[in-house]
Amino acid sequence: RTLRAGKLTERVLKLFIATGKDEVFSLIQALNIQVTVTPVLPTRALRPDLTSFMNEWRTIFSRFHLIIVKDPDLKEELKIPEGFNLDVYKKPDIDRVVGTSTSTIFSGYSCRYFGYLVSRKKYIISVDDDCYPVKDNKGILVDAVAQHITNLTTPATPFFFNTLYDPFTEGADFVRGYPFSLRSGVQCALSCGLWLNLADYDAPTQALKPEERNSRYVDAVLTVPARTLMPISGINIAFNREVIGPALLPSLRLGGEGKFRWETMEDIWSGMCVKVVCDHLGLGVKTGMPYVWRNDRGDAIASLRKEWEGVKLMEEVVPFFQSVRLSREATTTEDCVAEVANVVKEQLGSKDPMFARAAKAMVDWVKLWKSVGSSTSSPGA
Amino acid sequence: RTLRAGKLTERVLKLFIATGKDEVFSLIQALNIQVTVTPVLPTRALRPDLTSFMNEWRTIFSRFHLIIVKDPDLKEELKIPEGFNLDVYKKPDIDRVVGTSTSTIFSGYSCRYFGYLVSRKKYIISVDDDCYPVKDNKGILVDAVAQHITNLTTPATPFFFNTLYDPFTEGADFVRGYPFSLRSGVQCALSCGLWLNLADYDAPTQALKPEERNSRYVDAVLTVPARTLMPISGINIAFNREVIGPALLPSLRLGGEGKFRWETMEDIWSGMCVKVVCDHLGLGVKTGMPYVWRNDRGDAIASLRKEWEGVKLMEEVVPFFQSVRLSREATTTEDCVAEVANVVKEQLGSKDPMFARAAKAMVDWVKLWKSVGSSTSSPGA
Repeated sequence: RTLRAGKLTERVLKLFIATGKDEVFSLIQALNIQVTVTPVLPTRALRPDLTSFMNEWRTIFSRFHLIIVKDPDLKEELKIPEGFNLDVYKKPDIDRVVGTSTSTIFSGYSCRYFGYLVSRKKYIISVDDDCYPVKDNKGILVDAVAQHITNLTTPATPFFFNTLYDPFTEGADFVRGYPFSLRSGVQCALSCGLWLNLADYDAPTQALKPEERNSRYVDAVLTVPARTLMPISGINIAFNREVIGPALLPSLRLGGEGKFRWETMEDIWSGMCVKVVCDHLGLGVKTGMPYVWRNDRGDAIASLRKEWEGVKLMEEVVPFFQSVRLSREATTTEDCVAEVANVVKEQLGSKDPMFARAAKAMVDWVKLWKSVGSSTSSPGA
Repeated sequence: RTLRAGKLTERVLKLFIATGKDEVFSLIQALNIQVTVTPVLPTRALRPDLTSFMNEWRTIFSRFHLIIVKDPDLKEELKIPEGFNLDVYKKPDIDRVVGTSTSTIFSGYSCRYFGYLVSRKKYIISVDDDCYPVKDNKGILVDAVAQHITNLTTPATPFFFNTLYDPFTEGADFVRGYPFSLRSGVQCALSCGLWLNLADYDAPTQALKPEERNSRYVDAVLTVPARTLMPISGINIAFNREVIGPALLPSLRLGGEGKFRWETMEDIWSGMCVKVVCDHLGLGVKTGMPYVWRNDRGDAIASLRKEWEGVKLMEEVVPFFQSVRLSREATTTEDCVAEVANVVKEQLGSKDPMFARAAKAMVDWVKLWKSVGSSTSSPGA
């Protein structure tokens, strides 16, 4: 076998890669063959010129194959600088893969989910196109991809809180009193990064504090405890597509949804769903570093004038997701999402048609993932 | 009334202070009359000379009335530098207040609890005598008392996690998706500070990594979510004595307990109890800043050689405290502690006599608190 392997190096490598195992990932990292990560860059109807965005990220992103998804609502041509290895998916590509009736689910911020669907890599990193790399407290450029991958490839500790934050960080450990049986932790499925400059506030908060900018670089990563919910933003996240991929989904669309981040809630909803699924499956969610620099965008006062359901929405949604308990039969992410969809339909469906639509979209997404997302063929470009 | 108040300023001030209201606290702060905080400095059998400790803290502690409790096991005289306003409690004082049969509960690290018992201030801050003030990332001396008081006097948010940490910190807020109904938060009862240099590791961890020192200054405070347990260390903490005082108690004493922090678990046990009580009463617990600089002390390898129950202990204790649910009738901290003690006796008492003794000590503590801790007379010195 060793001989045969020697003869068929490339094919063997491909087989190894297909296993998606962490040892293989480490080897590939060591060989500097970057195949297991896809940065997905959703590009929305507001900014077709990606020149400065891509150039700022060049030293980090040029090492990877990138997926750029063009918001189907965006008419103008994207402007992308040279020197990257990437696939751009536009409306015709989306139509071809999922059909014209389904492709509408990928409009606006939700275009990111098309990239999640068609990638075949183990780890996905998604960074919005209004975000730039930051420097840390010591003035060193932060490699957001490397930090996300570290977060995802070291264990999470959701069952007991470690006061010195992530015990798997260099120079940290579990403090006195941390049970030894819990120190091996669990697999981390999701890594939520943060934002300097314009933080991810809602329109009312930003309208009340127009000058508020986040300048606090908190040098920490931590596991969000089991059964604790949080508002997961889609601006700067990474996840293990193999274990949790189908739970990152476009489903909740607000009536008055706009083209600014604070006019949407799809990522918050999807995030509540992911966290519930992770808690059920014994997977971890981390938050903290890496930071990205987020530039000003939009007029909070103008957004506030619109009829927007986002504020009152969470008053229903948080207690709902806090109460959801999945059955023992739900052993895969697909099962879990389908169960959550059922409970959404039963318990929230009658309160607002928006919730009934979200439940249906979740069921449809699981079907789409099974037919398109789980296939092993490489995506067309 | 105003006239009479004008005539009786001092008496009225005392009455105001006795109310313990936050507005009064603010007023007193404004007038620079520091009466509502007592730093309690437990001094144990290992270090009778407090000269360098007190001098390092002088600019911070000299503003307050201090309580120093001398470990009853410590034979030598304490050496305390001039220039502080303080009461020192020694074995004869402890015997006089609680009786000679009870005073044994205050030996070793547990001497701190005597200070908690006899203080009449709203906020207690307790810092071990092997800790020194630190400088922050900008090189500015950290006022640990001020940070703890900020943590205790701003709300905690235990029911939903805010990804930008404490939203009441200067320059921070609630992120998009945080329910507005939860933004007022709840009263914070306990503030757990952290440690630079020698972190609060257990002996096995420090023995495995003898060179490990914590140099990561994480510029954050956060609320530990409801129903999430954590190992609360007594090294650097502050609490609102009026709301949670009776739950900080000396009760669990290990068989092979020694004179080094990592040979004890009394604070971890007390911390589990406090957290369960806070969760039940809807109070918050924060962790993070302020840091203190903790100096090396003890030989981890030597501690490891002793028969020590601390490691296996938590394997029983964590699932136990995770499962404890208190009754609706338990509406005060005293009620809650008594209920926890009952469950400890019932569920753990037969497993190890150490737990039965801890349960009895908790019941005794509530009685002691009612007779000594709640009285309004000023403590003898």
